[in-house]
Amino acid sequence: MLNNKKKYCLNGSSGAKAQIQFADQKQEFNKRPTKIGRRSLSRSISQSSTDSYSSAASYTDSSDDETSPRDKQQKNSKGNSDFCVKNIKQAEFGRREIEIAEQEMPALMALRKRAQGEKPLAGAKIVGCTHITAQTAVLIETLGALGAQCRWAACNIYSTLNEVAAALAESGFPVFSWKGESEDDFWWCIDRCVNVEGWQPNMILDDGGDLTHWIYKKYPNMFKKIKGIVEESVTGVHRLYQLSKAGKLCVPAMNVNDSVTKQKFDNLYCCRESILDGLKRTTDMMFGGKQVVVCGYGEVGKGCCAALKAMGSIVYVTEIDPICALQACMDGFRLVKLNEVIRQVDIVITCTGNKNVVTREHLDRMKNGCIVCNMGHSNTEIDVASLRTPELTWERVRSQVDHVIWPDGKRVVLLAEGRLLNLSCSTVPTFVLSITATTQALALIELYNAPEGRYKQDVYLLPKKMDEYVASLHLPTFDAHLTELSDEQAKYLGLNKNGPFKPNYYRY
Amino acid sequence: MLNNKKKYCLNGSSGAKAQIQFADQKQEFNKRPTKIGRRSLSRSISQSSTDSYSSAASYTDSSDDETSPRDKQQKNSKGNSDFCVKNIKQAEFGRREIEIAEQEMPALMALRKRAQGEKPLAGAKIVGCTHITAQTAVLIETLGALGAQCRWAACNIYSTLNEVAAALAESGFPVFSWKGESEDDFWWCIDRCVNVEGWQPNMILDDGGDLTHWIYKKYPNMFKKIKGIVEESVTGVHRLYQLSKAGKLCVPAMNVNDSVTKQKFDNLYCCRESILDGLKRTTDMMFGGKQVVVCGYGEVGKGCCAALKAMGSIVYVTEIDPICALQACMDGFRLVKLNEVIRQVDIVITCTGNKNVVTREHLDRMKNGCIVCNMGHSNTEIDVASLRTPELTWERVRSQVDHVIWPDGKRVVLLAEGRLLNLSCSTVPTFVLSITATTQALALIELYNAPEGRYKQDVYLLPKKMDEYVASLHLPTFDAHLTELSDEQAKYLGLNKNGPFKPNYYRY
Amino acid sequence: MLNNKKKYCLNGSSGAKAQIQFADQKQEFNKRPTKIGRRSLSRSISQSSTDSYSSAASYTDSSDDETSPRDKQQKNSKGNSDFCVKNIKQAEFGRREIEIAEQEMPALMALRKRAQGEKPLAGAKIVGCTHITAQTAVLIETLGALGAQCRWAACNIYSTLNEVAAALAESGFPVFSWKGESEDDFWWCIDRCVNVEGWQPNMILDDGGDLTHWIYKKYPNMFKKIKGIVEESVTGVHRLYQLSKAGKLCVPAMNVNDSVTKQKFDNLYCCRESILDGLKRTTDMMFGGKQVVVCGYGEVGKGCCAALKAMGSIVYVTEIDPICALQACMDGFRLVKLNEVIRQVDIVITCTGNKNVVTREHLDRMKNGCIVCNMGHSNTEIDVASLRTPELTWERVRSQVDHVIWPDGKRVVLLAEGRLLNLSCSTVPTFVLSITATTQALALIELYNAPEGRYKQDVYLLPKKMDEYVASLHLPTFDAHLTELSDEQAKYLGLNKNGPFKPNYYRY
Amino acid sequence: MLNNKKKYCLNGSSGAKAQIQFADQKQEFNKRPTKIGRRSLSRSISQSSTDSYSSAASYTDSSDDETSPRDKQQKNSKGNSDFCVKNIKQAEFGRREIEIAEQEMPALMALRKRAQGEKPLAGAKIVGCTHITAQTAVLIETLGALGAQCRWAACNIYSTLNEVAAALAESGFPVFSWKGESEDDFWWCIDRCVNVEGWQPNMILDDGGDLTHWIYKKYPNMFKKIKGIVEESVTGVHRLYQLSKAGKLCVPAMNVNDSVTKQKFDNLYCCRESILDGLKRTTDMMFGGKQVVVCGYGEVGKGCCAALKAMGSIVYVTEIDPICALQACMDGFRLVKLNEVIRQVDIVITCTGNKNVVTREHLDRMKNGCIVCNMGHSNTEIDVASLRTPELTWERVRSQVDHVIWPDGKRVVLLAEGRLLNLSCSTVPTFVLSITATTQALALIELYNAPEGRYKQDVYLLPKKMDEYVASLHLPTFDAHLTELSDEQAKYLGLNKNGPFKPNYYRY
Repeated sequence: MLNNKKKYCLNGSSGAKAQIQFADQKQEFNKRPTKIGRRSLSRSISQSSTDSYSSAASYTDSSDDETSPRDKQQKNSKGNSDFCVKNIKQAEFGRREIEIAEQEMPALMALRKRAQGEKPLAGAKIVGCTHITAQTAVLIETLGALGAQCRWAACNIYSTLNEVAAALAESGFPVFSWKGESEDDFWWCIDRCVNVEGWQPNMILDDGGDLTHWIYKKYPNMFKKIKGIVEESVTGVHRLYQLSKAGKLCVPAMNVNDSVTKQKFDNLYCCRESILDGLKRTTDMMFGGKQVVVCGYGEVGKGCCAALKAMGSIVYVTEIDPICALQACMDGFRLVKLNEVIRQVDIVITCTGNKNVVTREHLDRMKNGCIVCNMGHSNTEIDVASLRTPELTWERVRSQVDHVIWPDGKRVVLLAEGRLLNLSCSTVPTFVLSITATTQALALIELYNAPEGRYKQDVYLLPKKMDEYVASLHLPTFDAHLTELSDEQAKYLGLNKNGPFKPNYYRY
Repeated sequence: MLNNKKKYCLNGSSGAKAQIQFADQKQEFNKRPTKIGRRSLSRSISQSSTDSYSSAASYTDSSDDETSPRDKQQKNSKGNSDFCVKNIKQAEFGRREIEIAEQEMPALMALRKRAQGEKPLAGAKIVGCTHITAQTAVLIETLGALGAQCRWAACNIYSTLNEVAAALAESGFPVFSWKGESEDDFWWCIDRCVNVEGWQPNMILDDGGDLTHWIYKKYPNMFKKIKGIVEESVTGVHRLYQLSKAGKLCVPAMNVNDSVTKQKFDNLYCCRESILDGLKRTTDMMFGGKQVVVCGYGEVGKGCCAALKAMGSIVYVTEIDPICALQACMDGFRLVKLNEVIRQVDIVITCTGNKNVVTREHLDRMKNGCIVCNMGHSNTEIDVASLRTPELTWERVRSQVDHVIWPDGKRVVLLAEGRLLNLSCSTVPTFVLSITATTQALALIELYNAPEGRYKQDVYLLPKKMDEYVASLHLPTFDAHLTELSDEQAKYLGLNKNGPFKPNYYRY
Repeated sequence: MLNNKKKYCLNGSSGAKAQIQFADQKQEFNKRPTKIGRRSLSRSISQSSTDSYSSAASYTDSSDDETSPRDKQQKNSKGNSDFCVKNIKQAEFGRREIEIAEQEMPALMALRKRAQGEKPLAGAKIVGCTHITAQTAVLIETLGALGAQCRWAACNIYSTLNEVAAALAESGFPVFSWKGESEDDFWWCIDRCVNVEGWQPNMILDDGGDLTHWIYKKYPNMFKKIKGIVEESVTGVHRLYQLSKAGKLCVPAMNVNDSVTKQKFDNLYCCRESILDGLKRTTDMMFGGKQVVVCGYGEVGKGCCAALKAMGSIVYVTEIDPICALQACMDGFRLVKLNEVIRQVDIVITCTGNKNVVTREHLDRMKNGCIVCNMGHSNTEIDVASLRTPELTWERVRSQVDHVIWPDGKRVVLLAEGRLLNLSCSTVPTFVLSITATTQALALIELYNAPEGRYKQDVYLLPKKMDEYVASLHLPTFDAHLTELSDEQAKYLGLNKNGPFKPNYYRY
Repeated sequence: MLNNKKKYCLNGSSGAKAQIQFADQKQEFNKRPTKIGRRSLSRSISQSSTDSYSSAASYTDSSDDETSPRDKQQKNSKGNSDFCVKNIKQAEFGRREIEIAEQEMPALMALRKRAQGEKPLAGAKIVGCTHITAQTAVLIETLGALGAQCRWAACNIYSTLNEVAAALAESGFPVFSWKGESEDDFWWCIDRCVNVEGWQPNMILDDGGDLTHWIYKKYPNMFKKIKGIVEESVTGVHRLYQLSKAGKLCVPAMNVNDSVTKQKFDNLYCCRESILDGLKRTTDMMFGGKQVVVCGYGEVGKGCCAALKAMGSIVYVTEIDPICALQACMDGFRLVKLNEVIRQVDIVITCTGNKNVVTREHLDRMKNGCIVCNMGHSNTEIDVASLRTPELTWERVRSQVDHVIWPDGKRVVLLAEGRLLNLSCSTVPTFVLSITATTQALALIELYNAPEGRYKQDVYLLPKKMDEYVASLHLPTFDAHLTELSDEQAKYLGLNKNGPFKPNYYRY
């Protein structure tokens, strides 16, 4: 139970670990205008930068209207005004976008169908803070169909699709969000979701931890009624673990970021495709015969390497972890130190989660025309700051493409200023977002319905059986037919016929 | 020798084969506004539709200036006015584009270097008619460096990059071309290249055959001094073979379209990458797990299949040729008739050069959301015309993406209205264009310098040794080191140490 | 602590779980002549069947000598007779085999080098029970070089290479083992290792659990001085977990079977190659174009699928686990039920660890010439027993290849009678064995040197850092160069510069 | 005996080109005992060395019988004695082998079926000289079923399967051949096929040209009645082209070696599999992570590279031809000179058709344990002779595996003494032999039935349509369904609906 002494738990921890603490909020906000969004630590797909959404958002945005949504009085067609969006009149267009997304999110639609009898979220009052896109709308409306009441804000000041927000508002969902919010707007919107007369949330769905942070800071008593938090981002999860370690986590929290399916899709499968896409859209380069060095052979690096090898590139890998290094060897990649190949490669790709992997010294030694980009966690993998020196000329040749020119004329091609290539220069397939959204929905159902005592004030991974369920809901997309165990086989294996099928340490 | 009686040779044949004859010119022009360009028979990369160039062309085009270039008086900085471009002031921007292209066209730059002593094209007067892009500019300036005088027009009314044309004019090349020419402008420009006081071409570089046609029609006597024609497009080559068959080809012609390197790069290597790029840019789809049918297993189909298989798609192939069919089997693709899989696939890709490969009947049976696109020759592979019926609704959802909606709500996603996906929805890497441009330059050198009698009034393939030379000029890009035969080995193999290394029928 | 009352702990548990209990020993022995060895539960590579060793063993085995080694008096060249092998005179040949193996086991050789100063196993008295092969000999001699005294018996009555055993005996290692031991010999040999005047083991290295069982049964007091058990087989590990659950495990035990490197090499990397090898050696079939169904998409299934896809086969996958199923989809394999494709496939491969995956009904429906084989755990995946009915004719066409002939003439090609294809019909690369042996050596060092209290009477996985160390020792084989973290980077990541580099749940 | 002026055509040319002339016969015979067979120039699959057949031949060969077959009187069960085989009693075993082969040669079986009405070879008297294996037997019996009379000898003194020869003799085919013939036997057998009372051949099927040579030399008049020669080996084809050039070819000859399907299967598809198989069977090595250099990137090199890359090897390529070199680059292989990588690679594979590609200098610089093998044409690609010097020690460690040991202890692992790895150390899949045999059968039908004048005294490639037909006959094996052109499509493409579908220069 929180009491007045302890409740500002976040303040209490603010001195120690600057990297994730909330006291840095202001500083983080300062970074926003660089367009990467402030949760740059995370390479979670759902934290798409504004770039990746901008094209989709441009359909109806004539945007001459400079009045702040907070100053406008708007009502939806049923007379309801409990929302704040850019322009409620864009609802119809947004609705079409949602409908198209529904077609590619069969798992959520299946959940809706199964929920027609039972309403597993009946009574749930969910406050959410995520990107507001057509895919999120499908999630929100699914939660509604499962019985929940929802209020929603954006987790990123740039990423809201105004038309989609309008469509949700038109359908009666209290949404508070628009593209291009100010920092003040951002927190105001969150507050409007939480601080409501006669309504108190009992579930939190967060992406980045800001909503959770706000409630901790402003309404700690609310946690008395909250059954749990579902968090999907690396940063948000990190914050939760810190809270837990510090003994300040007041409710159970579900880390959906590390579920198997989400990880594999966000990292391996998605990056296998988006590395090619991001490079093509920015540079139109040919992959065949190119020499590439990929720094880091985790899931992201594995995806990048596999794709480029398949396209006829010659790929080198750098690693710090000998196990991943041995995997790279067995998969047919020469394991080198960056210095060994930096003079000869045509492309450098970072996928490490580390910082200063590509240093100014490396950049100085690259050959003319070398392309440098980042597929990893943060925008610190390439030491871009070191390039902002007087002797180097920056030339913006396309959106997201800079030529950095050395005094001798050598050009290095820097993509997305070192921010995440796949978020800045390619889009995330709906199918990947469907995996994430389904995982979130199931985590909410699990936490909401769990018998007292199953979950304590700690951070949990999604139960494997749920992870398996998410996967099974997506198999029909591929017309894939699962085999069922016979009773005899289940007994032989010592398994329940319905899973879970693997021990927790299974590596997939 | 042509005389007045015989010279309108093309008119003489105009009744017979409508498909390629010049008398159909007007009818072909009528097709232009559909944006595919009139040389739809060809899948040659260089015949890019206007779409693929439009983005690049937009840098400086404020284009408020509605005056026709033909009505403007312009001079370059040296006072020269023997050109006609949109705006000579755009020269500087165009120059930068050319310089960037130069970096990626090392083979032409190498030719320039080798030509510093000898000028293999000294005395050559080349009239050219091609797309006018930065890459072409590198070619034209290379021809200049090799000793040639050049005059140039565009082979497509949409594809000219005005800035590049301006830069060429500024450097003293008589260029006659701008983006958005009318049909009349088109022929006027060509005529300005050919019909000059005191200058007569002795070499032709053509792409599509229009320039050749114009000289045949208007100035047949010119052929007396012309040493040869170099033609790179499928359509143009087809026209030349027809002329040759009819005994009306007046000079030697070089078919550079069918050289090994050009074919492999235009088809196999380029399509392996552009199929992914075109699909991603238009649909943002995920390839993993998708079921795809590729119609045709020639070089283009092989490229598409290899790429999609590598990205985790399940690929089916249709073929009419049992040898290619057996290759598909051995490469791991199930060989089916289109009907067998049409209900289940997520993507249909045509690569046949044939017509009506995907019929209305097939389209009727596709599942909701199925994507249909064409990587083959013409825009007739998919029977798009059959979809323009009242009961179907067309909805343009993005540039190059239409949803065709059946009465029951089923949507088929049609890309580029059935035109070539890779030309309409992705760009051609400079490296591929470099192969083509180098081949053209070498063909010009060969024809210009060939001793009397080596080439007769016929259509020739590039000598294999030249083809090998083109390849060798591109190896340094990959830091690739060729092995040389020892004298003893050359003798053992019965080969010249410098090639050619293979018999003509070698399949690579 | 064990006392007399409790010491026959295994008997105590014998009623419950027949599958792994020791009371079944006799029954298990009856299975031996079927050549699979009694630890059929395990697919651990090191438990090679006799088949896989027989060829290697044939060099010097004229084997006319029918005298039992137990009845012979042999001395090595130094007069020592504390061993029992087939023929001490074969030592020289065995020594050469060991020397060749040393060249391919650089990690153990590196351990020897590092141990020249410190002897991390000084004082260790290790009793071991494993296959006795050249690779094991390198391990044993490495343990010796690290300071340990060793006594060794075989874990399989067929797998001993007599020449190698002789070479070890010649070098002074008390080895008790020969090829073709009887059951009685088997236990006698183990007893001779353990039951020695004035020598008591303080470490156990076991493969299958028989040695551990024997000590539990006969000399439980020995556990007072034993510091730990290292076990590498699935079966042996299973037994240890059972003991632990039952509270009867008297010392710490290290499960080296589930270390990352061992798992990946035994399963994914090794099977990727051995599936092709096993099929070729038995059937000489061509893979291109063949339709194959792989049952199970775990590590083994993933390896088989990747290899066959690369060779041009069309591969279908069956799975019970939706997560693995989704992986199969994303990797480009159609996920089916076995029934859907059983009539059309050319090859059926089981990789499940389950039983009766391929039933008589499936076998009845296969097409003529279909090949059936097992890469999974046990020999029950294919219901081979169901084929031993009067109406079917068995025809042995080659070693390890049977044609089972239906009344209508249909032939099904059964490999290795349903036992493990890779163990029966291909050999295990030394490099894989090197991984295993190094892991065993490090586990012994860890357990032997661990400070009091680090390990309790439980079963442990190898510490991740050791796993990483095993990997790092094998990198030089590939001339692979690991990158080191800078201090700053290590701090940023919150890692020790020397590892471990990943959380325990990391999936690789 | 040849008489008359012109018909001593072979003698006339005998002085000039020692490499292929028949006058060298004796010298060639001397090479035989080295086991490579005398047609070492060829890498045609069907010219398997004795090694590759020896295992299959061992079933019934107790071989104590030292009597020469020429000295034995044997009759088959019908009392016929017009044959000479090792032991007619082995017929039953041979018959089973033939029946098994029939199941995997569906194309020939289909030809038999279609021939039940018409007998396209009625009246044909075919004399054949090929390897005598189960697959050849299926061909011979198919020719019989098509109406031909056949007499047969072996083209290699080691490759005959005695049981199969017996089975053919039992079925009434006059076969003269046994395993281990002497040189004298070899020519005696051929003569017995040709020199028969009251029977004169009108068709020749040859493999290597010895039969053709014999007739030229001994019975030149026979050519008056001979309608044509079908030759499948590189060497034999080379000889025919020499004859043709010299104006001495007396009848039309069909070069079936260079047909598309045969080339692709013998080289690309077959080698893709056999490189792995040959390396595994000889060395049990692991491919993953190994560094390999492949010399030559023709079809064989392409197959080797693709396979090893897929298995996780790091592959370098050397080439002399810049076009093939560029292909290697685009396919993702670093193109190097052998010297650049010779110190670091684990495996060296030659696929060039050239000689001394791997020199003693290269061998001196290889690292310890490096494996060297040849997949190319002849056994001169590796300069094995240079290794037979006193300071090097040869150690035979397995069949086909030698360790060559340098004075410092370095070992190079030489496979098959530099002869063709795939013929010496792996077997050829029946499917590949089926392609060849079907091509031979169709070539015989074509030549036999061609109207007067279609073929002159020249060497011809198989008509493309026949090549397509061979392919189509093999598609059912893969359950592959070919698409048929509609009339409209055929007209559009200017093709006959039944093919041929491609121009002659098409590269596939």
